[in-house]
Amino acid sequence: MFVYSLEEIKKVIQLDGNLMQQIEKAFLSLYEKQVQMPPIMRIDIPDQRGEVDIKSAYIEGEDSFAVKLSSGFFNNPSKGLPSSGGLMILMDATNGQPKAVLADDGHLTDLRTAAAGAVAAKWCSRKNSRIAGVIGTGAQARLQLEALTHVRSIEHVYVWGRNDQKSEAYKHDVERMLQIPVTVADSVQKVVETSDIVVTTTPSTTPLVFGEWLKKGTHITAMGSDAEHKQELDESVLLQADILICDKKDQSLRLGELRSCLDERVRDRAIELGSVVSGQYAGRVDDHQITVCDLTGTGVQDTAIARHVYQLLNSRIHSENGY
Amino acid sequence: MFVYSLEEIKKVIQLDGNLMQQIEKAFLSLYEKQVQMPPIMRIDIPDQRGEVDIKSAYIEGEDSFAVKLSSGFFNNPSKGLPSSGGLMILMDATNGQPKAVLADDGHLTDLRTAAAGAVAAKWCSRKNSRIAGVIGTGAQARLQLEALTHVRSIEHVYVWGRNDQKSEAYKHDVERMLQIPVTVADSVQKVVETSDIVVTTTPSTTPLVFGEWLKKGTHITAMGSDAEHKQELDESVLLQADILICDKKDQSLRLGELRSCLDERVRDRAIELGSVVSGQYAGRVDDHQITVCDLTGTGVQDTAIARHVYQLLNSRIHSENGY
Repeated sequence: MFVYSLEEIKKVIQLDGNLMQQIEKAFLSLYEKQVQMPPIMRIDIPDQRGEVDIKSAYIEGEDSFAVKLSSGFFNNPSKGLPSSGGLMILMDATNGQPKAVLADDGHLTDLRTAAAGAVAAKWCSRKNSRIAGVIGTGAQARLQLEALTHVRSIEHVYVWGRNDQKSEAYKHDVERMLQIPVTVADSVQKVVETSDIVVTTTPSTTPLVFGEWLKKGTHITAMGSDAEHKQELDESVLLQADILICDKKDQSLRLGELRSCLDERVRDRAIELGSVVSGQYAGRVDDHQITVCDLTGTGVQDTAIARHVYQLLNSRIHSENGY
Repeated sequence: MFVYSLEEIKKVIQLDGNLMQQIEKAFLSLYEKQVQMPPIMRIDIPDQRGEVDIKSAYIEGEDSFAVKLSSGFFNNPSKGLPSSGGLMILMDATNGQPKAVLADDGHLTDLRTAAAGAVAAKWCSRKNSRIAGVIGTGAQARLQLEALTHVRSIEHVYVWGRNDQKSEAYKHDVERMLQIPVTVADSVQKVVETSDIVVTTTPSTTPLVFGEWLKKGTHITAMGSDAEHKQELDESVLLQADILICDKKDQSLRLGELRSCLDERVRDRAIELGSVVSGQYAGRVDDHQITVCDLTGTGVQDTAIARHVYQLLNSRIHSENGY
């Protein structure tokens, strides 16, 4: 069993087309193949405003799969610690032995989540999308945008956050790292009305985006809600959507944006991202459609990125050894 | 995050009274305290006759808890590999960070399972039990007996296994290691009729022990069944039991010996081991009772042994450092 540190992992993995392809393939497998993806196991530590989620998925026929522990402890920042963390175990599916511990502190989760956003945008957003709107100013607000630039030519970013200082820091970071001008907006409405693609990245428990603000052709990726108490999109957004997509429908109904939508017809017509990748259902077909994709995070993404990084780590070892 | 190898773990942990106390305390907590113990997560790899189980339990107020991956791959022996394996992750409950990876290859599971058998025998078997009967000849057949010798003065062992060679190897090992004479019996019936305490340790899918063989005063611990398709005790054994105990009732009803018992009255009167440890219910009260304890394996045992071994590893480090 190998143990890889965050430093070693960061040396080999990037938020690039190669990773996005792996994540896209994972969604395709989730739709087309025999996949075992048990319900998320969860331990809550209310005293510490903490939770640990355990996810796993095995795609039948593959020779390994991941088990991921990810934690969110919202008292951590006051102790000088990051609120999220965790690790992945890559299991050998041929003999049940652990192949590797990826002590990634949640970094791979960050990357596979951002990559899923890019896959959603690739299949759902207008090809000529130029303006990205970002709700939230944290790690995913940065990574989702970075991922998006791989699939769409983003020329301007509008951002909104609750905290002005963090919004300014976001503007500073993005302008420096991605060389894209950022405007800090004074309302979510302004961001939504201005943008071609909107990505919501908050742990909000009340709706932030409303249907009446949507213009034709907009695509929204909502990646914040992954628990029973979270919600970023008002039901009116889902009602407005011409195409409504989610990563895994049963999860979205339980933990994602579909949860608070009571309209059966809307729930019924939600389709899975993998079914769009496979060609079974069409994604966007014209520039007037409003598309919404809800991402709750799936075990197949964890298995895909764990297998990908393990392969990269091993080819690196081989190349360092001169083979 | 520390990573400990099996070798390091074996240096500090023993199947001793200290461990048994921790496991007993775990059952007590399971009964008395607020415990989060989500249903077991399971991935099946039918091609390889393999399965990976993921267990966890958090006892509210404790500062850490374990997440355990354990595998059983029954094609492994033909490849020269052990059929069981796995590892444990000890999580810090104050901040969600992994404290340690215990790369124990399933050793801690073996020990905590054996320790539970000793706890069951302590509370249920006659104090004057002298003859132990063991069904099965594998690792648990050895460890359960070893654990039993800590709580009862065993003077003779009767063993039965399907494979004569393995039964002889068992006799040889036990006589050498525990200095207790072993008789290889030619039937399960002979073992059950002769013994004060019977421990069943097989992955059998059909009943091995029948009620008509039980004499007054016998105690049976059935630790083999931990899945929907396994069963070691015929329903007649449960009907005969004056006291019927299980580690966790809902698990026993789903995965253990209670599963195949259709008699509602029997199911209703099954109590949990922790309730006996707590004094809420009596264990054995006289030498004529027949007692049966079904062990399916619980996440609180994993958390207890992971915390215990972590403490031992750290006090060892301290003592090596001269503190």
